[in-house]
Amino acid sequence: MRTVPVELGARSYQITIGRDLLGRIGAMTSAVAEGASAYIITDTNVGPLYADAVAGSLSAGGYAASVVTFPAGEPNKTLATISDLFDRIFAAPRPPERGSVVVALGGGVAGDMAGFVAATLLRGVAFVQVPTSLLADVDSSVGGKTGVDHATGKNLIGAFHQPRGVFIDTDALATLPPVELASGMAECVKHGIIRDLSLVEWIEQHAGELMGGEPDLLGELIARNVAIKAAVVAADEREAGERAHLNFGHTIGHAIEAVAGFEPGADEQDYLRHGHCVALGMVAANRIAVGRDLLAETDTTRIESLLKAVNLPTRREGLADIDVLGIMRRDKKVRGGAIRFVLPAGALGRVDIHADVTDKEILDAIEYLSGS
Amino acid sequence: MRTVPVELGARSYQITIGRDLLGRIGAMTSAVAEGASAYIITDTNVGPLYADAVAGSLSAGGYAASVVTFPAGEPNKTLATISDLFDRIFAAPRPPERGSVVVALGGGVAGDMAGFVAATLLRGVAFVQVPTSLLADVDSSVGGKTGVDHATGKNLIGAFHQPRGVFIDTDALATLPPVELASGMAECVKHGIIRDLSLVEWIEQHAGELMGGEPDLLGELIARNVAIKAAVVAADEREAGERAHLNFGHTIGHAIEAVAGFEPGADEQDYLRHGHCVALGMVAANRIAVGRDLLAETDTTRIESLLKAVNLPTRREGLADIDVLGIMRRDKKVRGGAIRFVLPAGALGRVDIHADVTDKEILDAIEYLSGS
Repeated sequence: MRTVPVELGARSYQITIGRDLLGRIGAMTSAVAEGASAYIITDTNVGPLYADAVAGSLSAGGYAASVVTFPAGEPNKTLATISDLFDRIFAAPRPPERGSVVVALGGGVAGDMAGFVAATLLRGVAFVQVPTSLLADVDSSVGGKTGVDHATGKNLIGAFHQPRGVFIDTDALATLPPVELASGMAECVKHGIIRDLSLVEWIEQHAGELMGGEPDLLGELIARNVAIKAAVVAADEREAGERAHLNFGHTIGHAIEAVAGFEPGADEQDYLRHGHCVALGMVAANRIAVGRDLLAETDTTRIESLLKAVNLPTRREGLADIDVLGIMRRDKKVRGGAIRFVLPAGALGRVDIHADVTDKEILDAIEYLSGS
Repeated sequence: MRTVPVELGARSYQITIGRDLLGRIGAMTSAVAEGASAYIITDTNVGPLYADAVAGSLSAGGYAASVVTFPAGEPNKTLATISDLFDRIFAAPRPPERGSVVVALGGGVAGDMAGFVAATLLRGVAFVQVPTSLLADVDSSVGGKTGVDHATGKNLIGAFHQPRGVFIDTDALATLPPVELASGMAECVKHGIIRDLSLVEWIEQHAGELMGGEPDLLGELIARNVAIKAAVVAADEREAGERAHLNFGHTIGHAIEAVAGFEPGADEQDYLRHGHCVALGMVAANRIAVGRDLLAETDTTRIESLLKAVNLPTRREGLADIDVLGIMRRDKKVRGGAIRFVLPAGALGRVDIHADVTDKEILDAIEYLSGS
């Protein structure tokens, strides 16, 4: 079992990573959040697999535990679903009180939604996370971002609300579809590029075992990644400065994701997950960096090889035919401020923010992604 | 013009009270929250009176200002209305960005809803309040409580989000229905009873002029009251301890309000506003205190006379026929913990919390309220 501290002053907490943790959620939760009732928020994919085990553990830990399930998928990450979750929480046999605990069980969507419920239930109650996807393990388990999408954009409604604890059972990754494992790997490669060349090397060495689901190596991977993200977030909790480094690969990646839509299309093979889009975004950002002499050509090639080794795309045919730049501009308009790019700062392992990337550089990079 | 500081560390702000402030909202807002766009959230009662003036002032102050109006009344203080407000804010000519400002214009409901929008728009943006009712002036302008009701109870969904500034134009009180002025006076009397005997005396001396709407006296009244509430909140921002003193009169008052419903009935004269319910709750609490030798009989009589002088009820026929205690118990079940009473501590001007008030004491006090 590994633990990683997230240092946020009075809001500090620990991330616990290990095997066979689901049966111990009750005891671990009671160590960080005393309370009479717990509400497990999960989706229709993850709930049937693990909700009974988590509810049983919370009951054994002394909580009146209720399971509240919502339909899986990003299209359901809305205020309407939140309203439905509140209706069911207030109708639970044991209604919520200030000392209640909200438990997120599932991937990033479950975490974002449960966190928002915790942030706004009775003006804020305790929150613990039990992420079950690699993406949620290494990304949304640190940072305190919670919320829902709006028709005009992702994550436009929400709050910052830190969990009391995050419990990552690496055994849950055994039921994760391989394509989702790959999606999570994109954020791991990203953490290496922005902060830690040795992590890039380590993933290169162990790519095969990791993609094969070796539990202990996955535990080490998660621990290394949450430690990197925790350090970035601790230095900039409300995203005023260096936390923006975590957006490496996301500027173009988000625009590609908007084109790809949030939901699998008819052809499952063709659907891009978040991590797939981030992988393409990282390839594009590296391309821009090479053009500015901020990264060696060999380093781009090296990252592209690594992305392929963890089953992530490095090219996407037809992207040049889509107005990705227009989508970035629209997103910029909604979010405010200039389009900012995070680019490698001379080598892998460190990055800087650039507000002067030109349309031509962006279009050239998208052209590059469209090639073969 | 008077200013009262609210000391909350990094979240400190000032309350400005004066005449003819509406035309200066833009300049005052830009002094506390730089930003490109402002969203004025108001209701169908207050919007037609003042929204144009406030929007004009914000435009003159350099903001792209939009007015977003919702149907007046507590029954509309719901997550569904919040969702509608978000739809219209994101569809505004100038979409919101992190530096945007949300402006609450109206009474308590507008303040609670706008505050919740500000707390959750893009995970939190700047918020300023322009309260237009005496109740909002002296009560919701301090404390940072925001949120909406749920079918199962009031204010069950929300967040703490402090404003950057509160601008109280006492001229707005000229359009306030007299019954609403009386409702606001209940919280003023309450502040006197819990913290400041000299405020009780001052209201006694000026009751007639205050109810007649004398602007300068109303300004002084508001300044004295927000100063009291600010001191209580500063000592206990998240309501862990002495902030509960502000619940004086509210334990039974809230239960009466639940019976009275949130909305005017067929007979407008018969409808109890929040302050009317609090007035009855204070009479009941004083009655319980007299029974415990915590307050002199003459002090209860004195407060009852004062409440009458500011057009507030001290009796409510038929209350004994209603299961007020049952409502209190149900509310306690939803909120958690024991029924706690705030009672005078030997004299007017100070209070203590009591968790051991018996059903008999409560029923006797309600019987007393029902008498003549």
